[in-house]
Amino acid sequence: MTNKIYNFSAGPSKLPEAVVEIAKNELSNWHGKGFSIMEISHRGKDFGEVLAKSKQDLRNLLGISDNFEILFLQGGATQQFSQIPINMLGGRSADYVITGAWSEKSFNEAKKVSYYKNDPEHQIRLVASTQNSNFTKLPEISEIKLNPYAAYLHLCTNETIHGVEIDPNRLTPLPNVPLIADMSSHILSRPFDIEKFGLVYAGAQKNIGPAGLTLVIVRKDLLGLADLNTPKTWDYAQLAENDSMINTPPTFAIYMAGLVFDWLLNTCGGLENISKINKQKADLLYQNIDNSGDFYINSVQKDCRSQMNVPFIINKNVDKNGELLQKFLAEAEQNNLVGLKGHKSVGGLRASLYNAVTLEEVKVLCDFLQEFQRKFG
Amino acid sequence: MTNKIYNFSAGPSKLPEAVVEIAKNELSNWHGKGFSIMEISHRGKDFGEVLAKSKQDLRNLLGISDNFEILFLQGGATQQFSQIPINMLGGRSADYVITGAWSEKSFNEAKKVSYYKNDPEHQIRLVASTQNSNFTKLPEISEIKLNPYAAYLHLCTNETIHGVEIDPNRLTPLPNVPLIADMSSHILSRPFDIEKFGLVYAGAQKNIGPAGLTLVIVRKDLLGLADLNTPKTWDYAQLAENDSMINTPPTFAIYMAGLVFDWLLNTCGGLENISKINKQKADLLYQNIDNSGDFYINSVQKDCRSQMNVPFIINKNVDKNGELLQKFLAEAEQNNLVGLKGHKSVGGLRASLYNAVTLEEVKVLCDFLQEFQRKFG
Repeated sequence: MTNKIYNFSAGPSKLPEAVVEIAKNELSNWHGKGFSIMEISHRGKDFGEVLAKSKQDLRNLLGISDNFEILFLQGGATQQFSQIPINMLGGRSADYVITGAWSEKSFNEAKKVSYYKNDPEHQIRLVASTQNSNFTKLPEISEIKLNPYAAYLHLCTNETIHGVEIDPNRLTPLPNVPLIADMSSHILSRPFDIEKFGLVYAGAQKNIGPAGLTLVIVRKDLLGLADLNTPKTWDYAQLAENDSMINTPPTFAIYMAGLVFDWLLNTCGGLENISKINKQKADLLYQNIDNSGDFYINSVQKDCRSQMNVPFIINKNVDKNGELLQKFLAEAEQNNLVGLKGHKSVGGLRASLYNAVTLEEVKVLCDFLQEFQRKFG
Repeated sequence: MTNKIYNFSAGPSKLPEAVVEIAKNELSNWHGKGFSIMEISHRGKDFGEVLAKSKQDLRNLLGISDNFEILFLQGGATQQFSQIPINMLGGRSADYVITGAWSEKSFNEAKKVSYYKNDPEHQIRLVASTQNSNFTKLPEISEIKLNPYAAYLHLCTNETIHGVEIDPNRLTPLPNVPLIADMSSHILSRPFDIEKFGLVYAGAQKNIGPAGLTLVIVRKDLLGLADLNTPKTWDYAQLAENDSMINTPPTFAIYMAGLVFDWLLNTCGGLENISKINKQKADLLYQNIDNSGDFYINSVQKDCRSQMNVPFIINKNVDKNGELLQKFLAEAEQNNLVGLKGHKSVGGLRASLYNAVTLEEVKVLCDFLQEFQRKFG
């Protein structure tokens, strides 16, 4: 018997234990057929059923109507930073909002493939950035001047590194400007109205499944704008026409995602239920941080703190040379708490509370936080 | 206990049984650490070791010197059909040889991203095609007029659909034209001198591991030619600089590939050994086909028959309406022989004899061929 591990990794991250158990049990003998799901043709009946069920379960989970295509792609959200403008600009410009490291990256990649690289008036436009606040708050809506003729408005609704979240339910899109959202690190954490969006995308390795799969949900009427010379594997319209199988898709990752969708639907009771637990988990951890008398600090404004990714530091006045941080990580690991190191670009600590992380596990983390402060604070 | 399955799928295909067993045993508890290899950061120490060992084992297997970078990418060989010209043309033209469906696709995708789309003199050049023979032979070297100033010469050394193979050891590149080869369906099936090549690439889902991983081995001095506006995830130079981790790589697929490399090195005794078995397997199946009195037919010229992919048909004079073909597939499945259906573009039958398929399994297939002919021939 192994010691129980408490995994707060930002991604690739903890998968639901029940899902890993199923995958393990049938890894060499899928549905009693004597082979692994990894070992069969993506065009055969067996994998066809896996793909169809995965897509249908996802439709049920998010309430995705037939107005939308579901694409299972590769290359991560980062590849989408380029693939989205290539497919969605259609000769126009687009508006970008920067609320953290990931939306900043998406803006920089989009500029590279813009039609108007040397024309500041028409290129990819930055309409708001919260960099001045060190990405600790959201932009004031009143300050944003959107282009009513933009091909789309892009934002990242959950910044994995900076821990800033935009509730998708609070967004009101302009009538003719499709909203595009990078939801990599909080998709499936709560219900939201997908009909408000033109395109939603997410790397799988947080709330969906293993790394190597990218989910794109796109309104069908927005397809077909890519240049004729777009590589096949990058053209959403061609990908949609071929059910994401222009070439071999990442079959095992799709199978795993399907198990996660099934678990969310049938074990967790859907997104309404899981979102309540997610709120409890986040509330508990933020309370512990806020009640630590500034020993632990999360600097994000309370109304936009992420429920999924909680970056925090040990007060620099206490931990002048960073020794306590190292001690924290070492003690955490000794106590089987892993994945708590902050992103290399910002340092500090980070706990990611994805769907697979239980309330009990967050309680163990909070106890550890208190105990560590008692010993070294 | 399950019935033993005989899996001749063209890809995703059979993995070594020993590898699937290891993956299964440690799926929820990797190296006794209490988590799955899928659930941890790609930037942490544990996955770092998996990646480093995978690369080193691959270097040992193929004798890859430090002149080459090993990249673990996504998107399959099909994505490379575009990514290669984007990275390797450097403002020039390139020569393409077509010997089957895959090299034809690579040629068509390359033309789209060529610098000289409307200039037949300078665009991507087709220097040889065996389409007139229905892809049953290789082009005559004497007929090929290569461009000595081409950015590269591209070929597919094993055509998975048409079953035509070029022995990489027989190729002699022009002094200043790097040779680029799609080796998706026969890499690791035999030793070859990689120093002859500028770039070798392969989708993983045949001889390497699960689908969702693409291997690119590229000479370091050829890096850095991509346009500045190339998407980050497509720029070999940036990918090399970041050890294939500009963003999250397909960690589980890389782990599986690592297990396969280790199995080839330490269980199979390297590529020299496995190539002998591969030759025995292919010889046996071709003999059975050729000795069937034209009941089974493989039309590929003997000197370029693939050792990995054996497409064949049941003689049309015997099977006028294709009923025997359907009966063959049904009887095969009843006998636990799976993955024998030919590619949809050519129909018929196909047996793929990748490294994980044993000589014993090929014998069972040959017995089945004979038995089926006895009953219905």
